[in-house]
Amino acid sequence: MAEADIGLIGLGTMGSALALNIAEKGFPIAVYNRTAQVTRDFHAGAGELATRVIPTESLEELVAAIKPPRAIILMVPAGSPVDQQIEALAPLLDPQDLVIDAGNANFHDTNRRAEAGLPMRFLGVGVSGGEDGARHGPSIMGGGAQQDWDRIAPILTAIAARAEDGTPCATRMGEAGAGHFVKAVHNGIEYADMQMIAEIYGLMRDGMGLPADRIAGIFERWNDGPLQSYLIEISGKVAHAPDPHSGQPMLDVILDRAGQKGTGRWTAIEAQHLAAPIPVIEAAVMARNVSARLAERKAAEERFGPAPQPCDLDEDLLERALIAGKILCYAQGFAMISAASEAFGWSLPLPDIARVWRAGCIIRSTMLNDMAEALTENPGRNLIMAPGFASRIEEALPALRRVVSEGLAQGHPLPALAQGLTWFDMMRTARGTANMIQAQRDFFGAHGFERLDGRDDPHGPWGA
Amino acid sequence: MAEADIGLIGLGTMGSALALNIAEKGFPIAVYNRTAQVTRDFHAGAGELATRVIPTESLEELVAAIKPPRAIILMVPAGSPVDQQIEALAPLLDPQDLVIDAGNANFHDTNRRAEAGLPMRFLGVGVSGGEDGARHGPSIMGGGAQQDWDRIAPILTAIAARAEDGTPCATRMGEAGAGHFVKAVHNGIEYADMQMIAEIYGLMRDGMGLPADRIAGIFERWNDGPLQSYLIEISGKVAHAPDPHSGQPMLDVILDRAGQKGTGRWTAIEAQHLAAPIPVIEAAVMARNVSARLAERKAAEERFGPAPQPCDLDEDLLERALIAGKILCYAQGFAMISAASEAFGWSLPLPDIARVWRAGCIIRSTMLNDMAEALTENPGRNLIMAPGFASRIEEALPALRRVVSEGLAQGHPLPALAQGLTWFDMMRTARGTANMIQAQRDFFGAHGFERLDGRDDPHGPWGA
Repeated sequence: MAEADIGLIGLGTMGSALALNIAEKGFPIAVYNRTAQVTRDFHAGAGELATRVIPTESLEELVAAIKPPRAIILMVPAGSPVDQQIEALAPLLDPQDLVIDAGNANFHDTNRRAEAGLPMRFLGVGVSGGEDGARHGPSIMGGGAQQDWDRIAPILTAIAARAEDGTPCATRMGEAGAGHFVKAVHNGIEYADMQMIAEIYGLMRDGMGLPADRIAGIFERWNDGPLQSYLIEISGKVAHAPDPHSGQPMLDVILDRAGQKGTGRWTAIEAQHLAAPIPVIEAAVMARNVSARLAERKAAEERFGPAPQPCDLDEDLLERALIAGKILCYAQGFAMISAASEAFGWSLPLPDIARVWRAGCIIRSTMLNDMAEALTENPGRNLIMAPGFASRIEEALPALRRVVSEGLAQGHPLPALAQGLTWFDMMRTARGTANMIQAQRDFFGAHGFERLDGRDDPHGPWGA
Repeated sequence: MAEADIGLIGLGTMGSALALNIAEKGFPIAVYNRTAQVTRDFHAGAGELATRVIPTESLEELVAAIKPPRAIILMVPAGSPVDQQIEALAPLLDPQDLVIDAGNANFHDTNRRAEAGLPMRFLGVGVSGGEDGARHGPSIMGGGAQQDWDRIAPILTAIAARAEDGTPCATRMGEAGAGHFVKAVHNGIEYADMQMIAEIYGLMRDGMGLPADRIAGIFERWNDGPLQSYLIEISGKVAHAPDPHSGQPMLDVILDRAGQKGTGRWTAIEAQHLAAPIPVIEAAVMARNVSARLAERKAAEERFGPAPQPCDLDEDLLERALIAGKILCYAQGFAMISAASEAFGWSLPLPDIARVWRAGCIIRSTMLNDMAEALTENPGRNLIMAPGFASRIEEALPALRRVVSEGLAQGHPLPALAQGLTWFDMMRTARGTANMIQAQRDFFGAHGFERLDGRDDPHGPWGA
């Protein structure tokens, strides 16, 4: 009876896609869903892969169908459903059986579960790429003990996306919640990449007065250059598509109120706990929140008039500005990962993280190849200091500065691009302005300060 | 024996100052500190107020010294020390006795305690103004049941700061953690006010090449105008002060590495949970975090050169830019308070909050008078839409736009001022750019979108 290499619980969109991917790669898989009809429908719809799918209608049946020591993937909603599922499985499993939470867990929950001393082995695995990625090759970020990862790696490696050089995008990031943490930062960067593209789109639409099809052409050209990436590619596609109802460009028909599932917010909150500056990601989350306040925006436009005015910009400036913004945003993201690595006692492998993002996930891009190389050659340093990227920043920065300065002057809100620029200008200035803040803090709260000359006299003569 | 009107536990800096303030206003106060010697020293140093201070050396003695129904202020470190103190007091108190946590509690803890069904009455009270405020008149933000607030209000009102019109700055904000929440937002705004001043200071120092004494003169002049506030006042003072060791301006001797106790971070985290955009406060927290990375900043300056260059700006432009930045920052802060009011089922009184901040606390300013009025006359609307402030923004915005645009063009990092500007430009634009984000999200994740024409067809023809 025990003929499956692996089991999977939870046949929602992502779980179904992952199960078919596993079966397709030649691994017999036992599947279970709380509602038995879902399992039957899934099996019936699996086509020629059905021979490698073993539908089960109870946890006991599922466990019995898997070869020991067993491995079972959970694809259930994050939070308490995962705890409940682990609890339900506990009496049925042996201590050497392995449960893999491949859902969208908050990494703190994964840490907690790993530390709780579960009665079975446990991995927390971040899976990126949406339904299409899960079905045909996601990016997989693992967390947990090396021996547990090694056991399941043959399957995860087989189903993962492959980078251009053939490397599978499935990597163990470290202990416990490390995989889910890296996935969270991925999502934060995804928010930022999308927001910067939206800002550049706004400059083309409202600043340069370009229609959607010309904007589409620009994104298509950029996708053949340094900006080559999935998000630039689909920006061209969505700008190109016509609305089947009106014939207008699809983009012009879509309401500008952004939704979110909250993963960008998690990243912003975690960065606050780590005191790690990720202002481009914060700006992206902020912009989505403001976009949601449509009624307020309409009322304020009636009072003040709309902000954006024509701008003196061109396609080349915008491309270079986006290159600079992207590098600075990733530099912040990788620095946040370094901060977490130190804070949590992990040894997060920065180059491997860049590599695992090269394919399968939403932020996949050519530039990540070079980032992986730069992070390998310059361990422990901020990406902006890696020679290859330092020179790219130098080359592209004047365009970013010009675009932000001109855009803000003409009423274009560019919060993410502006925060990339201001972060970089702060990071490259040895003598900043926080001496004023320290003087104020000492004045009103006697908090003390350090002196440039190193003398130990931490308070000012404010009483005098 | 029971002759004290109130008791106080915890004779640290803030507790001592508050106890002396209470005694000075004519209320006999019983005090207790874990280390008895601290209590004795406090009593011995209380001067002529010692006759109204009753030192006690055990909790039993403290409780016995207070007239029932008793009121006891806790001034112990936030977190578990508060829980431990409540637990230790529980067997000694009657159900009608009142414990007041006047420390720096996270409002979630105050909510938890209020909901826990403690065996006594409980208030959470935020006290702002540092040691000097606590001693001579703080700003007091209360949370808890009305009847409990009413009982203690005579004392809190007597010791609080008074606004120019004579109103005491002590107000009940709502249930449970409402007072500590309002205090947290106060601290976030404090971070933002300080950061915007530091940015303007940097433009004067590095952009206009002004020496500290000229900068001091400018802040002093501004303190007679619309920017009149404690923080502008002390900015003038710290810019004016000479270093006793070198004779140089004190400001030029202080290291630009800002410290923080984390309260700005709490505000940023809470705003994320509320999906409330407070980008100016986020930028201020970010700037402190970047300032702390001194070694990295030095290395990057060696590679890229320092950012700030001379700017074409003047005193008048900077003053108006700071006025605009300040209004926009407060608009964000008050909007966050509204969001919390809704999320937590509170009815936070926005005008009273503006009033309670008018004196005693770090962000006290003349402009808060007008904000209180505007929020009274325009309930439920963003401050930017209140006629008096809308016209001030219109008047000052061109200066903010010019300062940010020119400053960023010349390498001055102005993250807080820039985020005030971009937030406002987003808030006043009915047709933003989030339609691009919605198109992308639908393309890669079938997340769906709304259409401008209201038609119910939430997906694009991407497959075509």
